[in-house]
Amino acid sequence: MSKELVFGHKNPDTDAIVAAKAYAYLQSKLGYDVEAVALGEPNMETNFVLNHFNEPTPRVVKTVANEVDAVMLVDHNEPQQSADDIADVTVTHVVDHHRIAGFNTAAPLYYTAQPVGCTSTILTNMFAANEVEIPAQLAGLMLSAIISDTLLLQSPTTTDKDREAVKALAEIADVDYQSYGIEMLKAGTNLAAKSDAELVAADAKSFTMAGKNVRIDQINTVDLNDVISREAGIKQAMADESAKEGYDLFLVLATNVLDSNSELFVVGEPKAVVEKAFNTTLKDDRASLPGVVSRKKQVVPPLQTAFEG
Amino acid sequence: MSKELVFGHKNPDTDAIVAAKAYAYLQSKLGYDVEAVALGEPNMETNFVLNHFNEPTPRVVKTVANEVDAVMLVDHNEPQQSADDIADVTVTHVVDHHRIAGFNTAAPLYYTAQPVGCTSTILTNMFAANEVEIPAQLAGLMLSAIISDTLLLQSPTTTDKDREAVKALAEIADVDYQSYGIEMLKAGTNLAAKSDAELVAADAKSFTMAGKNVRIDQINTVDLNDVISREAGIKQAMADESAKEGYDLFLVLATNVLDSNSELFVVGEPKAVVEKAFNTTLKDDRASLPGVVSRKKQVVPPLQTAFEG
Repeated sequence: MSKELVFGHKNPDTDAIVAAKAYAYLQSKLGYDVEAVALGEPNMETNFVLNHFNEPTPRVVKTVANEVDAVMLVDHNEPQQSADDIADVTVTHVVDHHRIAGFNTAAPLYYTAQPVGCTSTILTNMFAANEVEIPAQLAGLMLSAIISDTLLLQSPTTTDKDREAVKALAEIADVDYQSYGIEMLKAGTNLAAKSDAELVAADAKSFTMAGKNVRIDQINTVDLNDVISREAGIKQAMADESAKEGYDLFLVLATNVLDSNSELFVVGEPKAVVEKAFNTTLKDDRASLPGVVSRKKQVVPPLQTAFEG
Repeated sequence: MSKELVFGHKNPDTDAIVAAKAYAYLQSKLGYDVEAVALGEPNMETNFVLNHFNEPTPRVVKTVANEVDAVMLVDHNEPQQSADDIADVTVTHVVDHHRIAGFNTAAPLYYTAQPVGCTSTILTNMFAANEVEIPAQLAGLMLSAIISDTLLLQSPTTTDKDREAVKALAEIADVDYQSYGIEMLKAGTNLAAKSDAELVAADAKSFTMAGKNVRIDQINTVDLNDVISREAGIKQAMADESAKEGYDLFLVLATNVLDSNSELFVVGEPKAVVEKAFNTTLKDDRASLPGVVSRKKQVVPPLQTAFEG
């Protein structure tokens, strides 16, 4: 069996990096020749996690067809979120917790998706189903990914499976997940260290909706004023990126990870669709979205529906 | 939780009917309100199976949005193989063993795909993972589906998981699967009972390849001469269907289920792509394909590749 690369989405968050490592570990135990890589540098939160559990940073690649014929995807499936040359390789396995969009294969494959809060939750259960033990260090990483994706089990994406996985992983890793989780989330939200351009790029993902090129970024913070005070600069960075990359619509969702409220900045068109999606009125291209913390569950589906309606 | 319908593809084969029944049974045990239905009348083989195990024929529907908001798909995902109004409902679950193509959702879902010979094989393992017992009658149906899809474990789509599932199901159903399997396959190949139009429609599926509307039918037989002797009538029926439904290219694969050889009839264009896909030369729009028995593994992928190349 020839070697395959395992990776999460571009602009990797903690789950994208960790799920690749976890799935590569599981698949190697099941006899596959695999290497976990990343489609970008780890963010501040992920660096905190990797340091905390003394885990090396994965190798960063931009293209994959120059190395392998086949790959395994975690935490994404949409081609525009994947390697630039994803169309040139065969996807043999996917483990994901997102919608399926624009993902097409020529042949049957392994695809495991569940509407849970985090890919690492699905992987926790796949280790159990395959009777492979999770090492303590890897359990710590997977625990971190679930805390990150579910904002310490507070996001509406959180399911009972995520809660069960966090408990099981915290026990294996011997970590107090509440205190560790707050420390980790705070480590990931040091906004002062980032430029406006970095802020709007760090966790941004691209979507195609009704033929429009839609970019959605999320900025986590422990104080929304840290983002609102930079509104002008952030919107300028959104406009610059849109002009450069050809985005029709750019949304930045600033989320307070401690109280689960968000502020939305909008650049581009159609703004009427955004207002319809969130049943709100934009004032100076901005709106408060109380209780909105999940891009996947509370932003993408209503926006998609509004675009189609 | 509101009711959901569970169904396989149009032109249902034994797996499409049985997997819907099996998945509906499993999901009902897990607390879902579901009903297994079919997108067409059972074929001769499936009728033999349903009679043999004293199982009622499922209700046949053409549309689903008039009844439910959400559905679960088995044994298919491509929209053109699904209910006519599949775009108007939410797909919450998929269990399948085919390529993924043209399947898009607005929200995350449960998706379980494995490159094995039969959906019922995946379901056999899902019963085990959920610790739900398979009743003897249902085991007989699932066993029949695997025998049907893998041509009694002879098709190149057959995996070790299919072999293991057949053994486990045969034990539960208390069936000698070899002798039962031959009896079942023969029951499904009584070609004399079908008109030419019925023959080219019975197991036909639609595919979109490089923008072309491609129709591929498979006729199973225990003697290829039963099909070859009707070549002129079958090709006329293919041409009639193509004109009526707007197919660009129509392939009929006649397969001897006992010795695993096929004869291919081709109507429409581009024929050069067909010749390239199977590395053959058509003579009077016909070619022998020795060893080819699987549409999914030996026809669709090379044709897709040839279209793209």
